[in-house]
Amino acid sequence: MSPEEFRRHGHAAIDWIADYWASLDDLPVRAQVAPGDVRRRLPASAPEQAEPFDALLADLDRVVVPGLTHWQHPRFFAYFPANSSPAAILGDLLSSGIGAQGMIWATSPAVTEVEQVVLDWFAEALGLPDGFRSDSAGGGVIQDTASTATFTALLSALHRASGGVARVDGVGSEQWRVYGSTQAHSSLVKAAMMAGLGARAVRTVAVDPTTQAIDVAALRGAVVEDVESGLRPVMVHLAAGSTSTGAMDDVAAVAEAVREWDVWLHVDAAWAGVAAVCPEHRDFLAGVESADSFVTNPHKWLLTTFDCSTFWVRDRAALTGALSILPEYLRNAATESGEVVDYRDWHPQLGRRFRAIKLWAVLRTYGLEGLRAHIRSGIALAEHVAALVASDDRFEMVTEPSLSLVVFRLRAGDEQTLAAMEAVNASGEAYLSHTTVEGRAAIRLAVGSWRTTEADVDRTWRALQEAAAAEA
Amino acid sequence: MSPEEFRRHGHAAIDWIADYWASLDDLPVRAQVAPGDVRRRLPASAPEQAEPFDALLADLDRVVVPGLTHWQHPRFFAYFPANSSPAAILGDLLSSGIGAQGMIWATSPAVTEVEQVVLDWFAEALGLPDGFRSDSAGGGVIQDTASTATFTALLSALHRASGGVARVDGVGSEQWRVYGSTQAHSSLVKAAMMAGLGARAVRTVAVDPTTQAIDVAALRGAVVEDVESGLRPVMVHLAAGSTSTGAMDDVAAVAEAVREWDVWLHVDAAWAGVAAVCPEHRDFLAGVESADSFVTNPHKWLLTTFDCSTFWVRDRAALTGALSILPEYLRNAATESGEVVDYRDWHPQLGRRFRAIKLWAVLRTYGLEGLRAHIRSGIALAEHVAALVASDDRFEMVTEPSLSLVVFRLRAGDEQTLAAMEAVNASGEAYLSHTTVEGRAAIRLAVGSWRTTEADVDRTWRALQEAAAAEA
Ligand SMILES: Cc1ncc(COP(=O)(O)O)c(C=O)c1O
Ligand SMILES: Cc1ncc(COP(=O)(O)O)c(C=O)c1O
Repeated sequence: MSPEEFRRHGHAAIDWIADYWASLDDLPVRAQVAPGDVRRRLPASAPEQAEPFDALLADLDRVVVPGLTHWQHPRFFAYFPANSSPAAILGDLLSSGIGAQGMIWATSPAVTEVEQVVLDWFAEALGLPDGFRSDSAGGGVIQDTASTATFTALLSALHRASGGVARVDGVGSEQWRVYGSTQAHSSLVKAAMMAGLGARAVRTVAVDPTTQAIDVAALRGAVVEDVESGLRPVMVHLAAGSTSTGAMDDVAAVAEAVREWDVWLHVDAAWAGVAAVCPEHRDFLAGVESADSFVTNPHKWLLTTFDCSTFWVRDRAALTGALSILPEYLRNAATESGEVVDYRDWHPQLGRRFRAIKLWAVLRTYGLEGLRAHIRSGIALAEHVAALVASDDRFEMVTEPSLSLVVFRLRAGDEQTLAAMEAVNASGEAYLSHTTVEGRAAIRLAVGSWRTTEADVDRTWRALQEAAAAEA
Repeated sequence: MSPEEFRRHGHAAIDWIADYWASLDDLPVRAQVAPGDVRRRLPASAPEQAEPFDALLADLDRVVVPGLTHWQHPRFFAYFPANSSPAAILGDLLSSGIGAQGMIWATSPAVTEVEQVVLDWFAEALGLPDGFRSDSAGGGVIQDTASTATFTALLSALHRASGGVARVDGVGSEQWRVYGSTQAHSSLVKAAMMAGLGARAVRTVAVDPTTQAIDVAALRGAVVEDVESGLRPVMVHLAAGSTSTGAMDDVAAVAEAVREWDVWLHVDAAWAGVAAVCPEHRDFLAGVESADSFVTNPHKWLLTTFDCSTFWVRDRAALTGALSILPEYLRNAATESGEVVDYRDWHPQLGRRFRAIKLWAVLRTYGLEGLRAHIRSGIALAEHVAALVASDDRFEMVTEPSLSLVVFRLRAGDEQTLAAMEAVNASGEAYLSHTTVEGRAAIRLAVGSWRTTEADVDRTWRALQEAAAAEA
């Protein structure tokens, strides 16, 4: 592809995206395919000869679009959002074009330094403590996902708790214990499995049945009991916005409750954390200055195209202690001077693209004011949904709305609740997901897209009402 | 950013990239900055108000470009290449625009099925065994990096060797052993550290001093010795193209040598593997049908913008056994039917973007013939370098050229070798990296960019000759 062809096809790709977005409102949100449908429309082997780039664009329309559930659709309310946005897309495009590989500072210094600056900016914007800034003993890094962030938090915790022994001798037969509530994200158990502790090392702590937040006394009781039995508490995972209902564990109370043991406090605010760009929505992070690590995903609600998970630690030596290795071919004067940070020691991967440009583009192109307006609009729409639920006797709220997440059900029962949701999803009109709260089925509606309007919410609500009527 | 503004800025971003590439030839390859230079040119905080997108483009020129080592430069010969290409960039741009999140099949079926098809295509193009195809008991997945691939291979190996106990109880006090040569990539030790085995679990096996390939008898001896001491061999890591010199471990011989023990054979062909698109450069993979897993990085030499690491396993149940977790909110009919693959169980992350589009775009836009031509041109240029080395008495080859990698030194000695390389790097004329072979310093020159011509190689060689003269 010559430079001229790249310009031409590049402009066509940009236009394809703009057209795709414009078409979304008329497309069913959920893919209308059965297993194997997409695959059957593709040839069995790669082509021998080059094909024109337009052929790929044509196949996106012919094969891919019908097989997509459209996460950028204005009536996508399932899971948590994974917002893409114009600024992020173009930021990441520029990263691809630059094609720098920032495994260490020396392999392309701007990759590292822009990331440090952007993470400092973002920490300040969220009101995070100074101890997470790059000019402290801590610092931030962009992880691909919150799962990786939680995994690296656990590795750091093990490094610290073992006095550096784990990196050499492994986790051994020591009875390490990790704590999280019944509502902790499944990536906690996955992290324990990957780190060699096994799922059994995770002790699940009860939650308050109403708030779904961790029962702090029960947590303390579990730690005391374990310590008395000779087990070694290594990390407490706090959900600051749980996946199921957006429940907020009380960070300050937990920090206080486990203060006498040297356990690592990891705050998982994957979805909710970005709401802290609004000072009035920051209360749930009270106590975060006691946390050892904190993660939030701009790739969920903050307009930063997947993947971009911002992760901070208070003691970067624990993180790099767990992950550093220095082969000969990466030795260099800058690293040896200690004046720079080598991000390959901050995550499982070695190579890394210029991860920061897309978040940099988002922060600049929308400005903090624009981002606050985006968060506030999501929260206002969720309040609107809650009012709609309250206005219809057939429905009831399951938990208090949490930021832009609303969890509700049909009073008629679990079966009816799930059937109504499935009817809406199958119609393609909107897309919702389900959960279980205190043993009963519930519907989750998470607002988050920058393209969602009140009309989209109302239309979704009407579809739910019709489905509820059909179930009655 | 309105749709119209997105089109306008999008076209500008494409043009910025085309202009950046056109300017590369005149830029110093290595960044000309000291620690902190980039950071000092950026404001201390994120902007409150939105900025025009053009401001970002202006800062790329003002702040970022001077701080980059240009990996896409035609005279970048350091490490291994990390090729970006027009087709891959546009493919990934489309992935960002679609913004689908393919954590499970059901969240956007095309994300999973296109990836399965593309990995089957690519396995066939490389001549890999049928046991890696998605219609067998195995299958392929795109990992972000080879480091992650090696880590997940190790987790799979532990799952199988422990009979599924590790995921529940952890790696415990069992004395697991992992084998690799002195030339195995450092990601092997990192994987052992992350998996909870510790660096000590990796037993380093000697290499043949000439070929730098693993000494198969020594490997067998080590395994026998360990088994007799009650240790548990779990995985052998084979370098099919080592990082230092491109050394090729003999896969068939190793498979034969350790056949009586149930050890997982992981072939790390991160850099070299893609050369197998050319049937005449496939010999080094002889025996790969005995491998349990195989990784190669299209993001290195095969024109696929970082990150894209293709990874196959012969027994996908071992991989998903090590990594699967199923929270309520991800339960769905397709998963329960067993008819689909959920890729979140194939890697550490939960969320995942539409990873396959860029590789799909590369395979189609260049065709297998185009990709073979690209690989052959890199190899031919490396042969040209080897001839230049042979033609100048001051230089000597350190190892035989391996595909597109040439390793050589100044006869004068280590100090002179490193000083000559540093002089070339500092001049900005070209960029090379170093290694140590049998205790002596050497220069690595890895060809790989689609923009590198014979003139670029000759110009680099002249710079090296001048530097050598200055050292004499
Ligand atoms: C042989 C080998 N394996 C693994 C890697 C790690 O690659 P990645 O950055 O994809 O983890 C490299 C990097 O150069 C390599 O040469
Ligand atoms: C609270 C919480 N933590 C972690 C995750 C995992 O996110 P990721 O896909 O970035 O790993 C999620 C995903 O929804 C989440 O809700």
